[in-house]
Amino acid sequence: MTAKSIKRISRKAGLPPGTLVHIGERKAEQVKITIIDYDESQVQEKIAEKIEECFPFKDKPTVTWINIDGIHKVEVIEKIGNCFNLHPLILEDILNTGQRPKIEDFGEHIFLVLKMLYYLEKEITIEQVSLILGPNFVISFQEREGDVFNNIRERIRNNKGRIRKMGADYLAYSLLDAIVDGYFVILEKVGEEIEDIEEKLIKNPTPKTVQIIHNLKREMISLRKSVWPLREVVGVLERGESSLIKKTTGVYLRDVYDHTIQVIDTIETYRDMISGMLDIYLSSISNRMNEVMKILTIIATIFIPLTFIAGIYGMNFRFMPELGWRLGYPAVLFIMVIIGIVMLFYFRRKKWL
Amino acid sequence: MTAKSIKRISRKAGLPPGTLVHIGERKAEQVKITIIDYDESQVQEKIAEKIEECFPFKDKPTVTWINIDGIHKVEVIEKIGNCFNLHPLILEDILNTGQRPKIEDFGEHIFLVLKMLYYLEKEITIEQVSLILGPNFVISFQEREGDVFNNIRERIRNNKGRIRKMGADYLAYSLLDAIVDGYFVILEKVGEEIEDIEEKLIKNPTPKTVQIIHNLKREMISLRKSVWPLREVVGVLERGESSLIKKTTGVYLRDVYDHTIQVIDTIETYRDMISGMLDIYLSSISNRMNEVMKILTIIATIFIPLTFIAGIYGMNFRFMPELGWRLGYPAVLFIMVIIGIVMLFYFRRKKWL
Amino acid sequence: MTAKSIKRISRKAGLPPGTLVHIGERKAEQVKITIIDYDESQVQEKIAEKIEECFPFKDKPTVTWINIDGIHKVEVIEKIGNCFNLHPLILEDILNTGQRPKIEDFGEHIFLVLKMLYYLEKEITIEQVSLILGPNFVISFQEREGDVFNNIRERIRNNKGRIRKMGADYLAYSLLDAIVDGYFVILEKVGEEIEDIEEKLIKNPTPKTVQIIHNLKREMISLRKSVWPLREVVGVLERGESSLIKKTTGVYLRDVYDHTIQVIDTIETYRDMISGMLDIYLSSISNRMNEVMKILTIIATIFIPLTFIAGIYGMNFRFMPELGWRLGYPAVLFIMVIIGIVMLFYFRRKKWL
Amino acid sequence: MTAKSIKRISRKAGLPPGTLVHIGERKAEQVKITIIDYDESQVQEKIAEKIEECFPFKDKPTVTWINIDGIHKVEVIEKIGNCFNLHPLILEDILNTGQRPKIEDFGEHIFLVLKMLYYLEKEITIEQVSLILGPNFVISFQEREGDVFNNIRERIRNNKGRIRKMGADYLAYSLLDAIVDGYFVILEKVGEEIEDIEEKLIKNPTPKTVQIIHNLKREMISLRKSVWPLREVVGVLERGESSLIKKTTGVYLRDVYDHTIQVIDTIETYRDMISGMLDIYLSSISNRMNEVMKILTIIATIFIPLTFIAGIYGMNFRFMPELGWRLGYPAVLFIMVIIGIVMLFYFRRKKWL
Amino acid sequence: MTAKSIKRISRKAGLPPGTLVHIGERKAEQVKITIIDYDESQVQEKIAEKIEECFPFKDKPTVTWINIDGIHKVEVIEKIGNCFNLHPLILEDILNTGQRPKIEDFGEHIFLVLKMLYYLEKEITIEQVSLILGPNFVISFQEREGDVFNNIRERIRNNKGRIRKMGADYLAYSLLDAIVDGYFVILEKVGEEIEDIEEKLIKNPTPKTVQIIHNLKREMISLRKSVWPLREVVGVLERGESSLIKKTTGVYLRDVYDHTIQVIDTIETYRDMISGMLDIYLSSISNRMNEVMKILTIIATIFIPLTFIAGIYGMNFRFMPELGWRLGYPAVLFIMVIIGIVMLFYFRRKKWL
Repeated sequence: MTAKSIKRISRKAGLPPGTLVHIGERKAEQVKITIIDYDESQVQEKIAEKIEECFPFKDKPTVTWINIDGIHKVEVIEKIGNCFNLHPLILEDILNTGQRPKIEDFGEHIFLVLKMLYYLEKEITIEQVSLILGPNFVISFQEREGDVFNNIRERIRNNKGRIRKMGADYLAYSLLDAIVDGYFVILEKVGEEIEDIEEKLIKNPTPKTVQIIHNLKREMISLRKSVWPLREVVGVLERGESSLIKKTTGVYLRDVYDHTIQVIDTIETYRDMISGMLDIYLSSISNRMNEVMKILTIIATIFIPLTFIAGIYGMNFRFMPELGWRLGYPAVLFIMVIIGIVMLFYFRRKKWL
Repeated sequence: MTAKSIKRISRKAGLPPGTLVHIGERKAEQVKITIIDYDESQVQEKIAEKIEECFPFKDKPTVTWINIDGIHKVEVIEKIGNCFNLHPLILEDILNTGQRPKIEDFGEHIFLVLKMLYYLEKEITIEQVSLILGPNFVISFQEREGDVFNNIRERIRNNKGRIRKMGADYLAYSLLDAIVDGYFVILEKVGEEIEDIEEKLIKNPTPKTVQIIHNLKREMISLRKSVWPLREVVGVLERGESSLIKKTTGVYLRDVYDHTIQVIDTIETYRDMISGMLDIYLSSISNRMNEVMKILTIIATIFIPLTFIAGIYGMNFRFMPELGWRLGYPAVLFIMVIIGIVMLFYFRRKKWL
Repeated sequence: MTAKSIKRISRKAGLPPGTLVHIGERKAEQVKITIIDYDESQVQEKIAEKIEECFPFKDKPTVTWINIDGIHKVEVIEKIGNCFNLHPLILEDILNTGQRPKIEDFGEHIFLVLKMLYYLEKEITIEQVSLILGPNFVISFQEREGDVFNNIRERIRNNKGRIRKMGADYLAYSLLDAIVDGYFVILEKVGEEIEDIEEKLIKNPTPKTVQIIHNLKREMISLRKSVWPLREVVGVLERGESSLIKKTTGVYLRDVYDHTIQVIDTIETYRDMISGMLDIYLSSISNRMNEVMKILTIIATIFIPLTFIAGIYGMNFRFMPELGWRLGYPAVLFIMVIIGIVMLFYFRRKKWL
Repeated sequence: MTAKSIKRISRKAGLPPGTLVHIGERKAEQVKITIIDYDESQVQEKIAEKIEECFPFKDKPTVTWINIDGIHKVEVIEKIGNCFNLHPLILEDILNTGQRPKIEDFGEHIFLVLKMLYYLEKEITIEQVSLILGPNFVISFQEREGDVFNNIRERIRNNKGRIRKMGADYLAYSLLDAIVDGYFVILEKVGEEIEDIEEKLIKNPTPKTVQIIHNLKREMISLRKSVWPLREVVGVLERGESSLIKKTTGVYLRDVYDHTIQVIDTIETYRDMISGMLDIYLSSISNRMNEVMKILTIIATIFIPLTFIAGIYGMNFRFMPELGWRLGYPAVLFIMVIIGIVMLFYFRRKKWL
Repeated sequence: MTAKSIKRISRKAGLPPGTLVHIGERKAEQVKITIIDYDESQVQEKIAEKIEECFPFKDKPTVTWINIDGIHKVEVIEKIGNCFNLHPLILEDILNTGQRPKIEDFGEHIFLVLKMLYYLEKEITIEQVSLILGPNFVISFQEREGDVFNNIRERIRNNKGRIRKMGADYLAYSLLDAIVDGYFVILEKVGEEIEDIEEKLIKNPTPKTVQIIHNLKREMISLRKSVWPLREVVGVLERGESSLIKKTTGVYLRDVYDHTIQVIDTIETYRDMISGMLDIYLSSISNRMNEVMKILTIIATIFIPLTFIAGIYGMNFRFMPELGWRLGYPAVLFIMVIIGIVMLFYFRRKKWL
């Protein structure tokens, strides 16, 4: 993941800044543009064939949400940039999917880069979502179709909750909130996995378990990388220095901020747990080795001396008086049994048995 | 624990903010509402059948403490919210038991989320307590009956200490203080457990000990998570920026602040001790392995060569002059004893015996 | 230690704040009150039978040092509190020996909690010392008789140094300085112990050494806990915001501050050394195990094949031509010697010998 | 690397400050001076034979980029210093290749020290680049020919992008940007190497792998040392306190700042991964040891008792009734097989097989 | 080292502050006082027999450098203190060689404590240097003769560089700079040692290597302790709040500040490398153990079963049909060879051979 996005950024090295090049996997075939325009009394939704269809909404007093799935077509991004008067570096950042979550306030609009996490075919997928918040519009750019925003669409359509009564800043907040809520879904699964592994670790640790622990660890590293900077992003938004954020939305943003910190907390807790698991694994390996060694030692320590005694009376010396004794054989057997019993007592005292 | 509350939060993902959904285990059957109303001269206590009985107390000049055990009935919370004019997000936070301790100042009231820890059937139980501090009332929300506040109730009833002479802020402080005092009870038990394990570690470490150490470690992680944010919460209260906190109460809050730091200090010390214990365990395992190896090596090193000698004179070659010697057998035995003694001296010099 | 003081605090849980309860071991039988009153021209010293004897000194212009050994008699503390007008929470803190070092400025007096460390019967003892610095008096509370202040008493009696010419703030500084100097005495001993153990670790590490290292580690943890907060305490004093601290005393406080940092530095260095020692121990254990394994492997690898050969010619097959050869026996012996020598060369090449 | 540059700095110890001595490897034979002078309408490029050819450009209104490859000729640096009025300490820093990245604002020009990283014959090479940014010129000093600036030269020559329309500050930004982009190229390779090793670790870990991991670790340490201070450098530039940086360039610098943080993030992630790899290696070594021990124990535990039994019946006692039994031999063989099978079952139950 | 200086400080515990006692080893026999007095036009150098000879220089407009080697004679320090009007605590600090580097601004003079590091008989020696910077004089106190200042003396005598043209603050800077340059000399040697050990670690790690690594680690700890506080010291000087530091000297101090940070950086890097080396050592020990175990296992696993077979046919049963077979012996030998070959194949498949 990381290595891949780094690779792509590195390919762009040397191009003049503001050059629009898509950096990232081409995840969608087609660019799909959806427009939802609403105010308290009405809602209008359409899929735009051409990007130009969005432009009239720019100056309408209603709230407009333009969502673009697929960012590999540079010209689409460029046209939007021209229409909505975006700085070339914003466009460059939208196209570059290796961004860190960040916020930039350009006065007439705020630019946000976020990481949306969801499960796609049982794999955690990280998708970059860029948001432009203007006075009466939000433009969202996603790498492909499918997102965590369906509930918001429903709420707009059916006029559930407050959303239709509020402005574009509340819409942006809702998107942010949905993304952060998505992290909890991921963390839930990870938490279950951790509990699973802990049980396995105690019952039957195998080398494969280390591999799984290691993978979990890496997942946590990449999750952390996505969420940590978000704290600052939401913090900046919440402090409410921009005139684009209304005061009433501030309370909601503080709520998102709390959730973000909760996510970070949980990630840190999981990291602690995961590294504790490795310790348990290693100590259980040591324990097993110890047990193996004990058995070897018990067997060897009992039988090696006995075999030596048997070896003695297996020697072919002509003059070995014991060999002629009637009770030689049972006597030797008896001595052997005694030695064995003494050994066993010794091991018991040592608590090896 | 963590995994569970995360799971519940994740289920709420996508709902509009301010939607009241109870997130947490339903720990109580019934919602129990208790009202204690007092001033210096009188005290009145009753169990309310209906939440509406609380409302008249809102504007009485006496101090009113409304305690609600059981937060799974959304409509109860909602009604209180309407009556006392609470922000929907406060209500949402009260219902969501996966909160981090926090403080929010809404001007006319202060909202506090705290974690109450106590032993329930020998298990550390973490229960979320939400407090609303208004000008002349405190509303507390608990997940179930049973808390650490009985002493405060006694003090109010019997007019012990200062409490009846002071305002609602002092009551809130007392609740906070009781919760923090409860942490000391937990830490005491944990401290005893640590001492127990340390003794065991030295006398007789078993793989099970690792498990116990690991559980302690997890307990400390979750304790820490509950207490760390509290520092900030109390710090904010103490700095006394709200007009709801009187100056005289500030000194008491500083005291609670000191206790909180003491709790954090102790937790950190315990964490240090616990991770030191794992090191001791591992080194004691190594020591034991070493000891096992030494015994194996001593036995094998002494008897393997002797067995070899016995093997030699057990060969059936026709022409082996030693076999015919009169003193062959005793000579070989003598040589064997010598070899054994030399070996033992060698091991003694190596300090293995 | 920690566990104990926590236990005592936890017992107090639920009592109203400001309730005076002695929390700590009762270390002294009797409460002993000593008064030293001095100015540049005279000094007066007496042991008070009753606490009331101290009260006249409150308003005398001379500097008065009231020292109280033994804090288990609550009524003594209470009377002093009333006379010198101390806040109930101060009294509570004096009685509670589980405090963290701290400073509180109450305007007309400054309240300090310190930890005095000294050796009592070869054990590091931590005793809580509380100081009240007023405009012309210092009251010190100790858990028992015996302290690090004898030199100060001598200096006052014999008018050595500056002390008789300066005010109460200088006296308080002197007590603080004596306590910090006491830490160096402790650190000296600990340093010697560390050097001792390091030598042992190299010459002859035993499992017991781990135990000693672990104890040292715990001592450092508790030392650290006593000294770290002191930094802030002295820092606050030095910044000289209180009118009770004269400017000339500021220079001396900066000196104490430097010493405190030196103590903290040394503690951190010792911690580094101690954790390094555990690494050395573990690697030396590994080395020994390695050595044991090598010897076992050498012996086994040489003799097991030889024993096998002897075993072959010990078989009783009727048709084994070698057995009839005249030179069979010496030939086999020769081959065995050759194999042994080859093995030894192999081990030498592997650098095992 | 480090050791070498430290060595060179240490040789200079004792010389008066401002003494110009080249500290570093002499990486180039000749000093090569290139001048690129441009404005929006024209561009002029030449290789200067003598340093004096640069001087006329100092006061031309066009933007001039003077690039010097090879800093071992002290007199060249000295002459430039005199002409462009640089402080002797700047010149000293340019000559000393052991610098940390830093920025110094001298009012009429800004002095930057940067570390340029690129691959030279498959080795990561760190080269120090010093930049002087004046009102209408940039002077860059490199240790040798070959750099990451070719794209910038192209853009100037062909008037691509914005560069010809902007001032010297934009040129300086472009150089900085190219250097930071160069880090991504390095990180890409390192990321690939890490993935390589991870695969090897799982499939076939060898002691050599540890060596490679260790080398990676060291590379990350030195990378980190080059990049960390850059954060502050770019941060200072971006905050735009100097009048030499125009406001329009600020946005671009913020972009570089973001990239720098991304680089630092990636380095930290790689460090985490690398140290995780060592853990995996160690646990896989432990696993293998465990497996080896198991095989040894199984073989020894099965055959040592059997050999003992064979040894018993190999004894030469005259009176051993079993030896004369017709079914003695098959009975013993049968017993041996039974023992073997029991052992195997035991091992299966222990999950060793 | 540490332990020693702590010991000495602890001996002073209880004396009144400002009592002049020499704390440290008496490193010099005699106190040697050298005076260098210079301005731009002349230089005068002499060795003072008596401390009183220094006093006339106090009010001369020329720059005077008084250097005192040997601080064990308390009366010398005291006289200087009286003449130059130094605070008793300064004198105490000069005499106490266990100081941390620090700076104190007394208005009319600045007091600096520094640690000078140099090699004395191949051992790193730490010597405390105290500097008093007055308006036109610098007084330096060293523990013994021999320092890193010879170059400065040369520069003054021969009027090299700027030094004769500048004031006392430049002289103080020069001394500081020489001391910091001395650190690079130490770091160079340490760097070479580290490279040495790394090579040894790979080629032939022995238990002695751990000892060397450990010593290096301790050296780094003590180096760090000397250099870390210096950062703050130089930082305070550079910020130039004192009127004793001229603005022109500020640039030079910034240079020293950069060097100090470079030294700290290098120390941190070395610490990282050293702790990495321990990991390599441990993993190489594990590897060797593994290798030893493999050889043991191969030998034992091959020969133990074969010896068992030989043991079978060494039994003395009367009725063992195989013994009478003509081809019994070669058949058994053949079977043994087959078993051995199968084993070898098995080990090869396991990659043990």
